[in-house]
Amino acid sequence: MNKTLHIIKVGGNIIDDDARLNEFLTRFASLEGAKVLVHGGGKLATRLAADLKIPQQMVDGRRITDAETLRIVTMVYAGLINKSIVAGLQARNCPSIGLCGADADVIRAHKRQHTTTDYGFVGDVDRVDGKRLAALANSGLAVILAPITHDGNGQLLNTNADTIAQETAKALSGYFDTTLIYCFEKAGVLLDAEDDNTCIPMIDPATFEALKGDGKIFAGMIPKLTNAFQALQSGVGKVVIGKAEDWERLMSGASGTTITLDAKSHGS
Amino acid sequence: MNKTLHIIKVGGNIIDDDARLNEFLTRFASLEGAKVLVHGGGKLATRLAADLKIPQQMVDGRRITDAETLRIVTMVYAGLINKSIVAGLQARNCPSIGLCGADADVIRAHKRQHTTTDYGFVGDVDRVDGKRLAALANSGLAVILAPITHDGNGQLLNTNADTIAQETAKALSGYFDTTLIYCFEKAGVLLDAEDDNTCIPMIDPATFEALKGDGKIFAGMIPKLTNAFQALQSGVGKVVIGKAEDWERLMSGASGTTITLDAKSHGS
Repeated sequence: MNKTLHIIKVGGNIIDDDARLNEFLTRFASLEGAKVLVHGGGKLATRLAADLKIPQQMVDGRRITDAETLRIVTMVYAGLINKSIVAGLQARNCPSIGLCGADADVIRAHKRQHTTTDYGFVGDVDRVDGKRLAALANSGLAVILAPITHDGNGQLLNTNADTIAQETAKALSGYFDTTLIYCFEKAGVLLDAEDDNTCIPMIDPATFEALKGDGKIFAGMIPKLTNAFQALQSGVGKVVIGKAEDWERLMSGASGTTITLDAKSHGS
Repeated sequence: MNKTLHIIKVGGNIIDDDARLNEFLTRFASLEGAKVLVHGGGKLATRLAADLKIPQQMVDGRRITDAETLRIVTMVYAGLINKSIVAGLQARNCPSIGLCGADADVIRAHKRQHTTTDYGFVGDVDRVDGKRLAALANSGLAVILAPITHDGNGQLLNTNADTIAQETAKALSGYFDTTLIYCFEKAGVLLDAEDDNTCIPMIDPATFEALKGDGKIFAGMIPKLTNAFQALQSGVGKVVIGKAEDWERLMSGASGTTITLDAKSHGS
């Protein structure tokens, strides 16, 4: 049996809040075994762009990344956030290394081509170097990934952190029993988006189809789940979506939503 | 005999000029053997601070680093500059990894204590993890170091890039035959600071004392040379100071100033 590895994705709701980030880092530091943290950017990039009077344009929740905006996200994501997290983890006796996709060529991407929207310097992931990341993780380092990649021709690219988490989980599933955990602001996949008590504990493909058919899953969650199933089909052992604040219960599977290909094997 | 390793320090005159930086990266990429690049920050941090209306104060050429300024230098040095260099090297088939001192705990420092000046979040280096850096360099990666360190308690610190280059050279001299090269705007150590033709090709301790006694070395160069001799005494094989534009001749010792403990062995 392979060693276990956890990949945790944290988003803006934690990154933007010093107290919550500190709590989160303490929890992440205490997690045993190989681990990878993928962080988003939160509001810091938006705030810096506003301070510098660089207009920002969002399309479907994605940031249109012109050259000036790419400089901002590179500074904020790969610089300030990534290095603050690494320093915070070192202080918690969690040896860690912060990388973006260009570092050791760990994540190669290409500039997004889209028929109607020019996303600018936004990257879609081509490949993740699982072997390199596995070697780092096996050397006892937590790998902290910023959502900046490169195209191999010298161009840095702004890349969705959820996608990086997913592609990294897939690449590492050949080396570890890999669990991918998305920490976000809700308790998991909810029947009522306003009520954390309506969290669905487990979703397999049949449940997913039924929930979609009944219109019971809100639209924003559908691509996340579709991606989760794709990750599972590529070898990732388990995908969990939930609240970082429920950490212990989330890790044990007692809270959040577990996405699995086979409901019967869940919990075995 | 140990393998050779080159540590190159580049400063603002190259970082601030895209064309010169690109030329430099091409030369660095073509350098054979293990290698480390330490980059300064140049004017980008000063410009960003001005755009954000954060006043900057310099004392003896060192930036007083308040909390806001630390955020700026972390973004610019460890984010924008470091990752742009790494992406540029990958495009030149030079596998590389960009780190700050917090990453894998490679450079530990402490906040500078000074009797009269509060430098703010400026770090003085305590130790460099030569073993870790040697392992990375031996794995075929060029290590690109940003001049940001940490104190082990979660605090990032702004740290002089010349010092990082020197301490890194010392730490790696146990693992490699190490040459430390400072690329700067002059041809080397000059008798006449305005005339590149007055470059002193070689300085040993006796020459240094004589030049100092005669007042022939301008003041700004004395600490650089003192540090160079200290590095040599700690095991670094050779220290060279010169112009990046003279690359081939600089690497062969035909241009620039070579600082050595023993003039007789120079060139052997």
